[in-house]
Amino acid sequence: MNAEVVAVGTELLLGQIVDTNSSWIGEQLALAGIDSYLQVKVGDNRDRIRTVLETALGRADAVIVCGGLGPTQDDLTRDVIAEVMGVELVEDPEVVERLHEIFGRRGRDMPANNLRQALVPVGATRIAQMPGTAPGLVCPVGDKVIFAVPGVPWEMREMITGTVIPELRRRAGDTGVIRSRVVRVWGHSESGIAELLADRLDELDRTGRATIAFLASGIEGLKVRVTAKAETAEAADAVVAEEVAEVVDILRPWVFSDDDETMEAVVLRMLRDRRLTLGVAESLSGGLIASRLVSVPGYSDVLRGSVVSYASEVKFDVLGVPVGPVVSDDAAAAMSEGACRVLGSDVGIAVTGVAGPAEQEGVPAGTVFLASTVDGVTETAMLRFPGDREQIRQFSVITVLDHLRKRLVAGV
Amino acid sequence: MNAEVVAVGTELLLGQIVDTNSSWIGEQLALAGIDSYLQVKVGDNRDRIRTVLETALGRADAVIVCGGLGPTQDDLTRDVIAEVMGVELVEDPEVVERLHEIFGRRGRDMPANNLRQALVPVGATRIAQMPGTAPGLVCPVGDKVIFAVPGVPWEMREMITGTVIPELRRRAGDTGVIRSRVVRVWGHSESGIAELLADRLDELDRTGRATIAFLASGIEGLKVRVTAKAETAEAADAVVAEEVAEVVDILRPWVFSDDDETMEAVVLRMLRDRRLTLGVAESLSGGLIASRLVSVPGYSDVLRGSVVSYASEVKFDVLGVPVGPVVSDDAAAAMSEGACRVLGSDVGIAVTGVAGPAEQEGVPAGTVFLASTVDGVTETAMLRFPGDREQIRQFSVITVLDHLRKRLVAGV
Repeated sequence: MNAEVVAVGTELLLGQIVDTNSSWIGEQLALAGIDSYLQVKVGDNRDRIRTVLETALGRADAVIVCGGLGPTQDDLTRDVIAEVMGVELVEDPEVVERLHEIFGRRGRDMPANNLRQALVPVGATRIAQMPGTAPGLVCPVGDKVIFAVPGVPWEMREMITGTVIPELRRRAGDTGVIRSRVVRVWGHSESGIAELLADRLDELDRTGRATIAFLASGIEGLKVRVTAKAETAEAADAVVAEEVAEVVDILRPWVFSDDDETMEAVVLRMLRDRRLTLGVAESLSGGLIASRLVSVPGYSDVLRGSVVSYASEVKFDVLGVPVGPVVSDDAAAAMSEGACRVLGSDVGIAVTGVAGPAEQEGVPAGTVFLASTVDGVTETAMLRFPGDREQIRQFSVITVLDHLRKRLVAGV
Repeated sequence: MNAEVVAVGTELLLGQIVDTNSSWIGEQLALAGIDSYLQVKVGDNRDRIRTVLETALGRADAVIVCGGLGPTQDDLTRDVIAEVMGVELVEDPEVVERLHEIFGRRGRDMPANNLRQALVPVGATRIAQMPGTAPGLVCPVGDKVIFAVPGVPWEMREMITGTVIPELRRRAGDTGVIRSRVVRVWGHSESGIAELLADRLDELDRTGRATIAFLASGIEGLKVRVTAKAETAEAADAVVAEEVAEVVDILRPWVFSDDDETMEAVVLRMLRDRRLTLGVAESLSGGLIASRLVSVPGYSDVLRGSVVSYASEVKFDVLGVPVGPVVSDDAAAAMSEGACRVLGSDVGIAVTGVAGPAEQEGVPAGTVFLASTVDGVTETAMLRFPGDREQIRQFSVITVLDHLRKRLVAGV
């Protein structure tokens, strides 16, 4: 079974958007053991989309088309697929109803051209998942198939995971099960991690019982993915579990999750287990710590809030930082303690630093002071990060959370 | 003149790396007025690379191949191009010398397989720029041409800018220039905007003097891109300016930038022009407003900070919200006024609401109350947004900033 991916959108060719959808789909196909030899980007042009689809269908067993399912005149994917299938488009009454319902909930009238989204080629079926206003389509063409999914990432992902991959595996008659798990680490370089795992990688290369892949992922940490294929889910899970145990054993000082959790989720769970609440004071991270923490659902009882003290006076007046240099150990410590006091939390964390590009108070860009307050004891650390403003902010956030995590693990 | 882009690398298909090179090359081609109708990703497989190159050459005037020029066995681009040209590979003594020099500088012996990088198809010429160890190639095939550049982004970019684009323009005898500008709007649906612009789109279709494309971009707003091609940059700019003026005229109530600025940048500039400082109080957005605002460099004098009052007690104790329902007009108003008071700012904005998935205090998910305080006068608004937690948060952020923007425009 092999599937090609076609991303539709002139904005992709013009470089206005980077096509991350194809990469994500490629990854899902690989994890499911489905080959993908070619991925194409094509603009919003009827003839060219048609040629690309027909050529892809000529080579591959299945084609996944992503994008061009919106309501506007330049959304051509539906029309072209109907041409390729040699059928008419008909209005799907269920989709029409669904669209009216969505716009009704928003308290808005539905613009007439949205009805274009309800058109389905005769013989095609609608993908069950429909998180937005664009229905996905399963379109049989002889013994092959075209899947059409929207270009909106979260809509696309739900459909690929819920329908496209299972349907491709069913068509492949694939009874093998692929499982994988991600170990996340922080505080060591990608090449350093690879070196530590070198023997393990050699052995897996020899035995073929599993694979290990790395991916540096900014604020998400460094991901180490362990993948295995077996006849049953239980067997694959067992191999993955054994291999993950080996990896965790080797990388223990840097592992913060053995099951793909974010640093935020890990820290929030540890705090809840210890019945502790958290207050945050942030300067250069500018709300990013709080913003990441609230993205983890179900912890509103743990997180009290954050004081984003961007102006120095807010540090002095609201958080009680002593008037003086605000990029310093002392300032970070006072911010962390101030967060506990002002927000009424048991535990505090704080970040202050220079995101750059220019230095500040004579302190070079990339310098970050962080602090955590646990059981009334405040500890600080200083780091120098490479990178641009955004990278420095991201590294600061995951590092201050890791700082707190290590103190909670140590029980201090 | 039209050029296709081929990115070579199995890791691209597997989603281990996102292909940002093609996007960047696509943008450079568009800016140079060179059409690019197709971009393809292909794995490190000799037959498939050859098929892709030959097919692309059949359709396009030029093909830019990116990647597969390294020293290892799976770097196949050189070999395949020689096959397509029907010629041998010969060692380029200048490249050999250059390689020895590079490794010498690094104080290392050159591994023998690096000499593969000195192989050049007979009839091809080396691209003058060579920032790394992989030489780029200009390979004539009949009256067409293949350019080969490395996959390492900075090496690729230097060669594309220095040789590939100028050579393509020379071959095109083309002095045409493409220019584009993005108008950003908020507060109306993509399909509604498309309907308002329908007449305009029809006219442009007929006259071909410019094109308009839409892109819903979450927290970035809805982008309306106007593009025109002309003999000179000045002429193209003039057409774009005229067409942007038409678009802005039609969409005026929803336009927040006629030159691709973010909502944050627009609001911060308006505040600075009026010598006003800003304080933020946020609940469901959880720091995202502040985080977006600090991403705009150079406005640390405008933004005082943000109180992320996630727990109700923080709203009561820190911001002075009256004890009672915290998802309400009253709470939003008190938060906005509290932000001004606590953070010492002239202007305040606040967001409270239910991100979901569950309702809160009997208020359904997606309900958002926002407020702004300008000149001591507080106004509130209630909205119901569709989508998941993340979308609801994003919509809240751009909407509260737009709320403030409109009040500043109105001079209230």
